[in-house]
Amino acid sequence: MGYPETFEGYAVTDTNQWNTVKKIEFKPKPFGPKDVDIKIIACGVCGSDVHTVNAGWGKPDLPVIPGHEIVGTVVKVGEDVSSEYKVGARVGVGAQVGACLECETCLENNETYCPDWVDTYNDFYPDGSKTWGGYSSHIRVHEHFVFPIPEKLQTNDVAPMLCAGITTYSPLVRNGAGPGKKVGIIGIGGLGHFAIMFAKALGAEVYTFSRTNSKKEDALKLGTDHFIATYEEKDWATKYARKLDLIISCGNSSKNFDLDGYLKCLRVHGKLVSVGLPEEPFTVSPATFIKNGSLLGSSHLGNRQEMIDMLKLAAEKGIKSWHEDLKVGEEGISEALKRCHDNDVHYRFVLTDYDAKFA
Amino acid sequence: MGYPETFEGYAVTDTNQWNTVKKIEFKPKPFGPKDVDIKIIACGVCGSDVHTVNAGWGKPDLPVIPGHEIVGTVVKVGEDVSSEYKVGARVGVGAQVGACLECETCLENNETYCPDWVDTYNDFYPDGSKTWGGYSSHIRVHEHFVFPIPEKLQTNDVAPMLCAGITTYSPLVRNGAGPGKKVGIIGIGGLGHFAIMFAKALGAEVYTFSRTNSKKEDALKLGTDHFIATYEEKDWATKYARKLDLIISCGNSSKNFDLDGYLKCLRVHGKLVSVGLPEEPFTVSPATFIKNGSLLGSSHLGNRQEMIDMLKLAAEKGIKSWHEDLKVGEEGISEALKRCHDNDVHYRFVLTDYDAKFA
Repeated sequence: MGYPETFEGYAVTDTNQWNTVKKIEFKPKPFGPKDVDIKIIACGVCGSDVHTVNAGWGKPDLPVIPGHEIVGTVVKVGEDVSSEYKVGARVGVGAQVGACLECETCLENNETYCPDWVDTYNDFYPDGSKTWGGYSSHIRVHEHFVFPIPEKLQTNDVAPMLCAGITTYSPLVRNGAGPGKKVGIIGIGGLGHFAIMFAKALGAEVYTFSRTNSKKEDALKLGTDHFIATYEEKDWATKYARKLDLIISCGNSSKNFDLDGYLKCLRVHGKLVSVGLPEEPFTVSPATFIKNGSLLGSSHLGNRQEMIDMLKLAAEKGIKSWHEDLKVGEEGISEALKRCHDNDVHYRFVLTDYDAKFA
Repeated sequence: MGYPETFEGYAVTDTNQWNTVKKIEFKPKPFGPKDVDIKIIACGVCGSDVHTVNAGWGKPDLPVIPGHEIVGTVVKVGEDVSSEYKVGARVGVGAQVGACLECETCLENNETYCPDWVDTYNDFYPDGSKTWGGYSSHIRVHEHFVFPIPEKLQTNDVAPMLCAGITTYSPLVRNGAGPGKKVGIIGIGGLGHFAIMFAKALGAEVYTFSRTNSKKEDALKLGTDHFIATYEEKDWATKYARKLDLIISCGNSSKNFDLDGYLKCLRVHGKLVSVGLPEEPFTVSPATFIKNGSLLGSSHLGNRQEMIDMLKLAAEKGIKSWHEDLKVGEEGISEALKRCHDNDVHYRFVLTDYDAKFA
């Protein structure tokens, strides 16, 4: 078969040394008839990787091999896998690798909300098999969570779309972002830079909020129509009151985050969907909600069809991640995790050079 | 004209003695061409009255005459008032008496969210005139905020509908409560007892949540299909996980309120609309929202058409407030405010006997 039954990957083994990895061998879940084995060629580094390995979201199950923005080549397919996944095809895997696919939620195409959803790493399948992410030689995944990559998209441009992209694309389309709609985007980073590009590509008028002007030029290049530096423009919440149909918040912290101010910027019954997942709780005054009947919530990835639609839109409109590439391995991963933690990234790291590191 | 240009009412003058009122004279706003003068015959006592006079929602502008569940008789109409308000007609007034009626929000029939909305009491019109509530002889109101009362509805049964009723009816209809939908109602009181009755009348399957079983019998009489005592049934949040399409929370306090538990009871993208307005902020974990893409928000009253539709539905289905009547005046008001504060009310006080107290 040309590849081993045991895979290799770079794991964090101590949450106090969360940006130190070492190479380990691991056993993937037993191969099923709908499974696809993928030899990895690139993997984006997501903020989630940092929140997981430094225990910000709670203690992980060590060792952890992070990585859930994976592009690779199909090397083996189960007997019941659809014909679109032939050996040699280039495919993607995002932040989810399992769901029951039978419950009411799954049957409504909300498999990303299935009570039994399985994360790509630091999680377990129903049979007890542990999941291992994309800082690895290979990954084994049920075909429902494997996505064909359109030919037009370059591997390293598309990898970060598999999590950061879909996380912003799904709430945009589910909440009607399109021509005639005004969409606010809070925070420019891995998530935010996709949110601006996709909101614009979908036809909405885009308002980007950032603390300072340091990313203004980037935001304009990404396609925003308006840019608001909230630390500079003190009365922004009044100026933009009731202007926006929808806000996608990509902020990763609830501290010094003026949630009440942003909610005021929504039209009646407008929604603020926080796709950033802060480590601290949200706090909001009931009186804020009552003024415009606004709503606060979140969103988890996007369903299979949305992923396919997003990749098609990206191919059509030439949407590419802004990324810096680092070589997979102890050094590259250490630098990526550290700089991602320090917000020193514009706007995604992609790990590459897998052939050299995995025999 | 048969009534004075100065009206009389019972005012709270000290927030430390918030259930002591004294009779004062006050000047209503100048009479406009679209105004209706109403001689009051009954007024419900709302939780808002207590939150206002005891400064729970912030220091009020003293003196305050509370009361915004008003039924009365038209005694004078401005020259441009529509023909449906003839002198002698029985009409209602709720918790709002003004809005610009010209802005984008008003033109979308969202006048209850107009940035310039005017509350029925403890508020000011754009010209600086103060508003005075229904513990009074008369009220002067723009016809947009005056509602004809269907003949079938008894005055004291309908008064509490003008605030408590519409506050629950509007989010129910705006969020699709009807046949085939499962609606949760949290808290049985002035708001909650209407929420149960209207959700049922609209055709939804109703799940009522209360801390103990003490109001179970009442909830069943009001029409709930299911009753959950959250202090008794420890695993309720797991048992009812993802069951409900919509939750209307009528709770008045965020303390010991398991917001995360209730959000778990929602289906994917379901909404929890808090129509209770707690004095403390909401706190919610971002991880809760992400599991089912649920949303948290609030709602403010209901628009003119919804008020008319609600009164029609109440007349058709025989929906009546559960109320205890007390005589307007120092004693009756003092008792109503005190017992309302202490939650010793099933489920609304209505002040009556206006003819005896106001010459």
